Amino acid sequence: MRSFYSEVQAQHNPVEPHVFQGRALPPAETAARARRILEGLAAAGFEPPEPPAPIDEATLELVHTPRYLRFLRDAHERWRVATGAAADAEARPYVRPLPGAARREPTSVLAQLGWYSFDDDPILAGTWEAAAASVACAVAAADAVEAGARAAYALCRPPGHHAGAECFGGYCYLNNAAIAAARLAARSHRVAVLDLDAHHGNGTQAIFWERGDVVTISIHGDPDVHYPFFGGYADERGSGAGDGAHHNFPLPTGTDGDTYLGALDDALATIAAAEPDAVVVSLGVDTDAADGVFSLGLDDFRRIGAAIARLGRPLVVVQEGGYGPEVLERDVAAVLTEIASA
Amino acid sequence: MRSFYSEVQAQHNPVEPHVFQGRALPPAETAARARRILEGLAAAGFEPPEPPAPIDEATLELVHTPRYLRFLRDAHERWRVATGAAADAEARPYVRPLPGAARREPTSVLAQLGWYSFDDDPILAGTWEAAAASVACAVAAADAVEAGARAAYALCRPPGHHAGAECFGGYCYLNNAAIAAARLAARSHRVAVLDLDAHHGNGTQAIFWERGDVVTISIHGDPDVHYPFFGGYADERGSGAGDGAHHNFPLPTGTDGDTYLGALDDALATIAAAEPDAVVVSLGVDTDAADGVFSLGLDDFRRIGAAIARLGRPLVVVQEGGYGPEVLERDVAAVLTEIASA
Repeated sequence: MRSFYSEVQAQHNPVEPHVFQGRALPPAETAARARRILEGLAAAGFEPPEPPAPIDEATLELVHTPRYLRFLRDAHERWRVATGAAADAEARPYVRPLPGAARREPTSVLAQLGWYSFDDDPILAGTWEAAAASVACAVAAADAVEAGARAAYALCRPPGHHAGAECFGGYCYLNNAAIAAARLAARSHRVAVLDLDAHHGNGTQAIFWERGDVVTISIHGDPDVHYPFFGGYADERGSGAGDGAHHNFPLPTGTDGDTYLGALDDALATIAAAEPDAVVVSLGVDTDAADGVFSLGLDDFRRIGAAIARLGRPLVVVQEGGYGPEVLERDVAAVLTEIASA
Repeated sequence: MRSFYSEVQAQHNPVEPHVFQGRALPPAETAARARRILEGLAAAGFEPPEPPAPIDEATLELVHTPRYLRFLRDAHERWRVATGAAADAEARPYVRPLPGAARREPTSVLAQLGWYSFDDDPILAGTWEAAAASVACAVAAADAVEAGARAAYALCRPPGHHAGAECFGGYCYLNNAAIAAARLAARSHRVAVLDLDAHHGNGTQAIFWERGDVVTISIHGDPDVHYPFFGGYADERGSGAGDGAHHNFPLPTGTDGDTYLGALDDALATIAAAEPDAVVVSLGVDTDAADGVFSLGLDDFRRIGAAIARLGRPLVVVQEGGYGPEVLERDVAAVLTEIASA
């Protein structure tokens, strides 16, 4: 199975604490995650990943607005000028428009950081280059599948599924999976996105909310309790041309493997009914018990990989979350081993 | 001149760093501010302030929604239960709805902190009691004026003018000035709010945006450069019944006393034309050069006090911002001395 990764992605590597689930914590989405996944895949016998071909702006604009891309590319340098901060400082959003009040796009980068985001994630000097390289992996995997591969893997980090058309948050800056899906859709393929990250794929859902040509399915922790909270309820189904094309499977905290696999079977039946030409899998493995949302273990990830493979559809597997010590690399390798050997 | 303050207000006293103008800084809006103002007023010969009478929920509901008040009262305790944090920990918002996406009011307190706020200010165990006591001061001052006083002063902190009908931010939790104004308006008085804080009174403006019975005027730093950024432009004039009742005077960074007093004259002419029965003054003294927005000095604050007094209207003076070492207490005393001696 071809896989893709670029060392440029390591240029996004936050070190300052941030707030998650109400507490200040060390950053979880760091360059070390990619190194661990690379080691896990090597240990499982996979070939080293290929560096992806560069992508152009038009590819990013399949999903993101030009003004957001311009902001994201220049934000750190503009913030340094505005604040006098050091090159390695992290530009962090804080202020947003007053809810419900008259508003307009602000001109100050200090305010644009809040305008174009939905949590307190920072932009670093290397964020733009790293995020664009991460997208390049997803695009390379999509192109490999379009060229005939049964499956391909993109070692995307920073991840992407929380990024909207013009906002970052949840460790995500550019929506890797959505861009891969939109690229295939633009070439007249029917596409489904299956989001297995423990957290609702709010960015992906929002991007395709009014589109019917990309079906989205997300299985995730109950939004009454889990990040990103504001969406992912079962009654969210899309609108306009997208009405009925979007599907959410919220599950309770601590859900075990059997229950999870049951929900996955329902999700896969939904995908099968849509008869997609390709399935983009947003592969978060933060469903592992180590990450505190569900209680899946190694064997469950093998079952997930096997179930996805049984779909019999070409698979573009895009890395999303997964953080637990030792289990991130183990669980990713388990899923990919099942897909590769199917 | 009667003045009002309660020691309960000191129960809101944040200590953790927070982000302002893009950098992590020690908290500026602390209980020490009130102590400094008390000392400054005593040194200037003012009588000690009176403790205000308690207020009831209906008074708060003149401006804030019941669900927001319920949230604000219970948030810290609910957050402690949800996170296991210590009693003296600061509950800080982080995640918000994805801009433009489908959204609903979240049930988790972790998400409600973001839903009901617009920056990264924390809620502490004592925030509710302190903010309610701060409102009580503004209400007591309004009632003193209604009973015939020419002027009264409320030593409000936490301040209020950034708080909206259902959101906190900018050090503000309950909108002291707006509640005082709404209380007078509810008793059939015509009211104007003159906001002299260096930062746009976005909460006050939003609260009265569609009302014509309370005129609002704000003089503040250019929203292209200064907090809270997203509003306060000269073309914002209100809507519906409030169309034309709201006035903004944004001024460039570093504006000096003469230019500022010129804008204040225009603002006072606007107020005179509205013929209000009372004027609520949101008295921020962060226009002092020490606070980095404008370049006013002590004599300018004397001129401000004299100009307001010349209006010849009953004045409810409500404390907002002002932080600079030694100048906060000096500038407040200067304004009030002019008003008291007019």
